[in-house]
Amino acid sequence: MTNTRPDEFELIARLTQGLSSRPDVDQSVGDDCAVLDMGGNMQLLATCDSQVEDVHFTFATSSPRDIGRKALAINISDIAAMGGEPRYALISLILPSRKTFRLEVLDAIYSGLRQEAEQFNVAIVGGNVAGTARHEHASLIIDISLLGAVERGHALLRSGARAGDTLFVTGAPGESAAGLFTLLHPELPYPSQARETARAIFRVPRPRVREGRILSSFGPSIVTAMLDISDGLSGDLQHICERSGVGARVVVAQLPQSSALRSIATVASHDPLDWILNGGEDYELLFSVSPGHEETVVKAVQSATGTPVTAIGTICPPEEGMKLVWPGGREETLVPKSWDHLRSSST
Amino acid sequence: MTNTRPDEFELIARLTQGLSSRPDVDQSVGDDCAVLDMGGNMQLLATCDSQVEDVHFTFATSSPRDIGRKALAINISDIAAMGGEPRYALISLILPSRKTFRLEVLDAIYSGLRQEAEQFNVAIVGGNVAGTARHEHASLIIDISLLGAVERGHALLRSGARAGDTLFVTGAPGESAAGLFTLLHPELPYPSQARETARAIFRVPRPRVREGRILSSFGPSIVTAMLDISDGLSGDLQHICERSGVGARVVVAQLPQSSALRSIATVASHDPLDWILNGGEDYELLFSVSPGHEETVVKAVQSATGTPVTAIGTICPPEEGMKLVWPGGREETLVPKSWDHLRSSST
Repeated sequence: MTNTRPDEFELIARLTQGLSSRPDVDQSVGDDCAVLDMGGNMQLLATCDSQVEDVHFTFATSSPRDIGRKALAINISDIAAMGGEPRYALISLILPSRKTFRLEVLDAIYSGLRQEAEQFNVAIVGGNVAGTARHEHASLIIDISLLGAVERGHALLRSGARAGDTLFVTGAPGESAAGLFTLLHPELPYPSQARETARAIFRVPRPRVREGRILSSFGPSIVTAMLDISDGLSGDLQHICERSGVGARVVVAQLPQSSALRSIATVASHDPLDWILNGGEDYELLFSVSPGHEETVVKAVQSATGTPVTAIGTICPPEEGMKLVWPGGREETLVPKSWDHLRSSST
Repeated sequence: MTNTRPDEFELIARLTQGLSSRPDVDQSVGDDCAVLDMGGNMQLLATCDSQVEDVHFTFATSSPRDIGRKALAINISDIAAMGGEPRYALISLILPSRKTFRLEVLDAIYSGLRQEAEQFNVAIVGGNVAGTARHEHASLIIDISLLGAVERGHALLRSGARAGDTLFVTGAPGESAAGLFTLLHPELPYPSQARETARAIFRVPRPRVREGRILSSFGPSIVTAMLDISDGLSGDLQHICERSGVGARVVVAQLPQSSALRSIATVASHDPLDWILNGGEDYELLFSVSPGHEETVVKAVQSATGTPVTAIGTICPPEEGMKLVWPGGREETLVPKSWDHLRSSST
């Protein structure tokens, strides 16, 4: 059993393979949220995510308040990624077994959770606190389950993309990774505005709830697949390709590059494309639109929210795989380099 | 901040004080589940609970499969405690950062989760796996959020008990604590059948879903308050008293004592009343019934399920507090001795 260590996705697939279901479960494990049918006009969305100290966050690079905000924000983003409205949160805290709880740190984390909840009209409806016994300096864990709602039949899954669809992204992915880089390498002379912009996104991403609501209003026949970019554009695009049974071409020249990202990349001598494709944690929305509807969809999102929406490529037949298209037309296989949440524990 | 270490309940109260809510939240933090209104005929129930290795379970006393079963069973019990039907589970696992995952242990835990889910028609609809970074031998954590449903207006809260109501309990609390005692003191000559009965309840409690469903069919005007005994009869009765603003009298001679519990207590030279009142983890239902309905309610549960239901006392005005009534009529203050889930980390 020790020769082949599965990564996070393989492990979840192994554990949840062939789970028995219920007729009121429209979508189970494998998308950003489960889609559940309680019989009303709205379908229930449910998602959970854990944030583990020194794996997903560290007090060295974020304040306790921002850690609380981000823990909820990334769950809100999973609801946004279905086109839903976030509603109810259950917050489970596992405290390190320090002899003295650092109550002021907990208070600050919770005040961040509250701030983010209020901003998105989420009610914190359940709380649980447990301690760990084994180590005085064990990791703090924030585990959140978030429930939301979406109009019946309007949830946007990962599985509906079809060859010929256009691939879009909101905002400009990569800033979060650039922000983390500046925190890990603080000695470099980044322009201060670029640095603060990128760090702010890394510390508290903006879930694209309003954008997702507009996209789901078109329904899955027009917005055929959607997810949020948590693992990196390349890795999350692979999720769409696998779930939809398609391939994809991403056109390098069309990828949006923010000025903050460009200026940090220059100072860091880092390829900005690496952050854009593989950085992750931006929580922008990646989605596909069926032919003939591209302009309507883009205009609807941009006019209501002001958020840029950029066409970055096309969905292809599965045998074409995932490709990067360089200026001049050269094509290169796009190899996903995703963040593996078990990586820290498997090396 | 270090002089006064709050216990689990104080900490949750501190963190969740004055949370903003939503109009569709009928019951928030403070009961077994949140009660949420999605607009259909059924209301949504939501609860979460964590099981931490060496705090809530240990591989020394339970098999991985039973640990998985129990982790889900205690959440199912929270749905039962509202009178609801369990439906959808989100399972979050935090793995210790061992260089080699013990995949066979994880598989066994998950097979226990599946077994319990199938038994209660629960669909596992979300899964998350994360690793911890700090310690190779950190605790394994199983954090579950469970969603259920109950007919509109039929959720049984902790807050509706009124003076004059009769207090009932299902089954015979205390066996779980007796079972744990036999595991911690295996050298004593317990009768083998009693030992195995008590250990089985400790390892995998029976959530009283069918009993709860029948009780909620009467509605909260008849079954005025209910919860499940997770922390101990005395501690959980205190939760009803606090939330309902009442007192309670528990009649010692009326408390059900199982023969397994009695025979283990005799061998252990342990007061059986301590396990019955303070043991916890039985997950029996404790509930109050308004005057005139006692017989109807008891018969309905017993005839449909075969589960014993016993009147153990009465609800009193709040100024009378919580009392134990001894044979002969002597009254003694009942002091709750609950399990504090942070205790292990605060000593």
